[in-house]
Amino acid sequence: MLHIVNAHILNVFNQTFEKTELWIESGKIYLRGTSSELVADETYDAKGQYLVPGLIDAHMHIESSLLRPAELGRVLAAHGVTSAVADPHELASVSGTQGLDYMLADARKSPVRFSFMLPSSVPATAFEHAGAILQAQDLEPFYAQPEVNGLAEVMDYPAVMNGDPDMLRKISDAKKHGKHVDGHAAGLTREQLAVYRKYGITTDHEATSVQEAQARLDAGMSVLIRQGTVEADELALLPAVNTTNQQAFSFATDDKSVNDLVEHGSIDESVQMAIAAGLSPEQAYSMASYHAALAERLTDIGALTDGYYADLVVLQDKNHFKPQHVMINGAWVDEQPVETAERHDMPLNFTFNQHDLVLPIQANQKAHVIKVMPHHITTEHEITEVPTKDDQFVSDDVYNKMVVIERYHDLGHALGIINGLGLRKGAIGQTVAHDSHNVIIAGADDTAMQLAADTLRDMQGGQVVVIDENHIVTLPLEIGGLMSNQPYEQVYERVQALKNAFHEISDINFDPFLTLSFMALPVIPSLKLTDQGLFDFEKFTFIDLVE
Amino acid sequence: MLHIVNAHILNVFNQTFEKTELWIESGKIYLRGTSSELVADETYDAKGQYLVPGLIDAHMHIESSLLRPAELGRVLAAHGVTSAVADPHELASVSGTQGLDYMLADARKSPVRFSFMLPSSVPATAFEHAGAILQAQDLEPFYAQPEVNGLAEVMDYPAVMNGDPDMLRKISDAKKHGKHVDGHAAGLTREQLAVYRKYGITTDHEATSVQEAQARLDAGMSVLIRQGTVEADELALLPAVNTTNQQAFSFATDDKSVNDLVEHGSIDESVQMAIAAGLSPEQAYSMASYHAALAERLTDIGALTDGYYADLVVLQDKNHFKPQHVMINGAWVDEQPVETAERHDMPLNFTFNQHDLVLPIQANQKAHVIKVMPHHITTEHEITEVPTKDDQFVSDDVYNKMVVIERYHDLGHALGIINGLGLRKGAIGQTVAHDSHNVIIAGADDTAMQLAADTLRDMQGGQVVVIDENHIVTLPLEIGGLMSNQPYEQVYERVQALKNAFHEISDINFDPFLTLSFMALPVIPSLKLTDQGLFDFEKFTFIDLVE
Repeated sequence: MLHIVNAHILNVFNQTFEKTELWIESGKIYLRGTSSELVADETYDAKGQYLVPGLIDAHMHIESSLLRPAELGRVLAAHGVTSAVADPHELASVSGTQGLDYMLADARKSPVRFSFMLPSSVPATAFEHAGAILQAQDLEPFYAQPEVNGLAEVMDYPAVMNGDPDMLRKISDAKKHGKHVDGHAAGLTREQLAVYRKYGITTDHEATSVQEAQARLDAGMSVLIRQGTVEADELALLPAVNTTNQQAFSFATDDKSVNDLVEHGSIDESVQMAIAAGLSPEQAYSMASYHAALAERLTDIGALTDGYYADLVVLQDKNHFKPQHVMINGAWVDEQPVETAERHDMPLNFTFNQHDLVLPIQANQKAHVIKVMPHHITTEHEITEVPTKDDQFVSDDVYNKMVVIERYHDLGHALGIINGLGLRKGAIGQTVAHDSHNVIIAGADDTAMQLAADTLRDMQGGQVVVIDENHIVTLPLEIGGLMSNQPYEQVYERVQALKNAFHEISDINFDPFLTLSFMALPVIPSLKLTDQGLFDFEKFTFIDLVE
Repeated sequence: MLHIVNAHILNVFNQTFEKTELWIESGKIYLRGTSSELVADETYDAKGQYLVPGLIDAHMHIESSLLRPAELGRVLAAHGVTSAVADPHELASVSGTQGLDYMLADARKSPVRFSFMLPSSVPATAFEHAGAILQAQDLEPFYAQPEVNGLAEVMDYPAVMNGDPDMLRKISDAKKHGKHVDGHAAGLTREQLAVYRKYGITTDHEATSVQEAQARLDAGMSVLIRQGTVEADELALLPAVNTTNQQAFSFATDDKSVNDLVEHGSIDESVQMAIAAGLSPEQAYSMASYHAALAERLTDIGALTDGYYADLVVLQDKNHFKPQHVMINGAWVDEQPVETAERHDMPLNFTFNQHDLVLPIQANQKAHVIKVMPHHITTEHEITEVPTKDDQFVSDDVYNKMVVIERYHDLGHALGIINGLGLRKGAIGQTVAHDSHNVIIAGADDTAMQLAADTLRDMQGGQVVVIDENHIVTLPLEIGGLMSNQPYEQVYERVQALKNAFHEISDINFDPFLTLSFMALPVIPSLKLTDQGLFDFEKFTFIDLVE
């Protein structure tokens, strides 16, 4: 029995720091308070410091960090995030139930607690080929796993609205097992939110304004305030939070890359921003722990009293979330190496030759070009003449060639032209390409693009910058082409190396890999390239490249 | 689609009445708010009146009303109570799983929503013979029933503390099925509450003081403020409620008799008392609905917004809980007769003759006498000389004879002497006797007591006053000897008739049946009579009647 004394401990029910004690046994808090009966084996003198519950990320994707679960756990623990609710739809799109098994198994090696929500939309759309199809019957057996907490962000509003049997079964299976259903309600009207509520969906993380947050509250939903690498809505949403509605608000990262995590943090960053914006520390810490547990129906975490897991963070200054010590399951988290990773072999299966890169077009013809909008995942649809030679497209600094290659069943590829990556030479490529994670490559010359494809295949997936045939920089992402098997320090270092290599071939100042990873996502406007072709969002159909 | 307009509708999340609208379909609220898209088939003009969620009784025993579930539902609905969480341990003690089946089946005919918790302690003690034994394996199949919400009040603290395997399995089975575990933590110290919290027990309804309530809050438990016929703690507890802790408080009746319900109400009475004590109506209504749903983990009731059941009460004056209209599952509740009751035949099985009532004692000997404390369920242990004739006990106005007869397997009986019922002649008897509900009779003469026993057997259980052999007044409780098959108006009338009949044989001014029903309960001090004998609580063992 560990006895923590001389501490100011947050009470998340009344949002007050109370000078009291904790008695901890078998990973849980046995009693909060003083006791003349209990006997301690060990005493920790907090010396007046402040204890708060470990932070909880209410909705996130492990794969976005490029780290495997146990490795991401090391980063999160260091930042005082002790639990996270993960939707593994990225790896599930690559390797189906095998991928889910891998995520569950590797997460068990993590110092932090990962709960998993079962992906509701794999594949995400019919306009790209993914590696797997997960129907309700494929998901249901996973409810037997203790870490499975429900059904992940239901984003296919039409399927719900139209009563698609498989979608409705996914939702009712979660309910049947007494589990929770998350929503993804981006852009939904008030009446559309009612449809989600009719089916018992209770959360959303896609609100981007005070009005949108209020509509979700009106509909009886919890609002997960999202602050991540791709989408960052916290500053816009914090004004919606007041003393009477704050219990409905918690924090989520959704997607956070390894460099963003290392340089800025995770939910600790959300908490610091909230305090800077004027919320009391007590309120910010409660939103980041207890309210997240309420939203996600996690019953044994998020508070520091009897019966809850002993997951907590020691702060020296209660106004600044700077972890002095982190405890998870009653044990202080040290910087210890993680157990050896599980293997998850998914060779890339595609044939691709340089002649596949020939793009016929005449000088006077117009092409449909994907125009990048810096720092956005949407694109503009440009119809324009492009540089040609011998009736074939050739890159210049503005217009580069792009290709998406299906990598699961050798089903082929599609070519496109992209404006805005600024590649003067060489090529970049990766196997991170939402949502199907096929191979996506952009380049200034075909040889470099071919090299990129071969390198990606050799690595079993990852990210690559080809400067020229003698200078290739890689980040292997051996786990499904999405995550690295290496410690996060090494992954971070490789990310920097890719960044530096990229600067030798382009002058753009936004993250090219992040941008490129959304260029194959057809359901985000306006023009995208999937392995099946060029997809026009406004027409909602494939179109020819040449006008 | 029903459209409710011109209403002030309580928002339980911020405890404010908001002028807004409700759209109701298929028993649920489809949308709370205005809409230009939705089309109504029917409109209800609330004319500015106030709508609150139907009230929820967080912990109660249907059997205490003497009414069968569907019939009790009529009473509750009329009082604006639309849901109740029932622990059917009374009937379960009589007829085991058959009794549970009956309660679930009859409750489905009720206008109100009954959730059931599975009884955790049947039989309650080893010192009396009950009709059934329910172990974890007997309970588990019931988790398949949609109305089953978890494990009922865990009251056997020693079993939990000592790690009794069957008790721990009952608790873990509830958790395994994603269900909820209630506690009964009467008199437990702070450290003992921690033991309950260790096993995930999250509620208690036995707090009787502000300090006790605070201890439960400190331990992370919800406090159900109990106001019932036997125990009434609300006035003592309301001072513990403040703006920062109020979400942990809700209301429960525990035990309410039919006359108490008809004359004073159910949770509506608790709400009125709270408002009179100074709580705002908004807060009182929220505690009586939303907070009860939170405490008992009931997800689709307790709030009036999208996705919740359309269970609501229309009030003319927001400061007075006087239901103008009650809606349950989207339909207005009218005074309609209830469907015919299910049968639940449990004949009483005992042999008993007048000579069994002979109680040998000499004039100079002392007897251990059960001394009634008016309006309490505890008794005093009196050791005294008693009236005798021919070396046998004879009653006078002060000392009456008592017998408890085992009624399931003809296992026998035990005699006692009771001081305080004031019976001058005749006898009273019933088959309501916590917790085993054997036959319990007290009387001034043996002939009348024998008549009482025979009458109870003939009725298949109930309550009886024998004035003399020509004047016997009965309330048959054909359902397990605990509940009547009749409409509540008739049961109420019979209860009054018994009261009047009793006044012809005794002058005491407290309820003799209520008192008598606790005289066989060995775990409440100080001296009690079970079918196995006279039980001394302080010695915690059976003792002889004669000193």
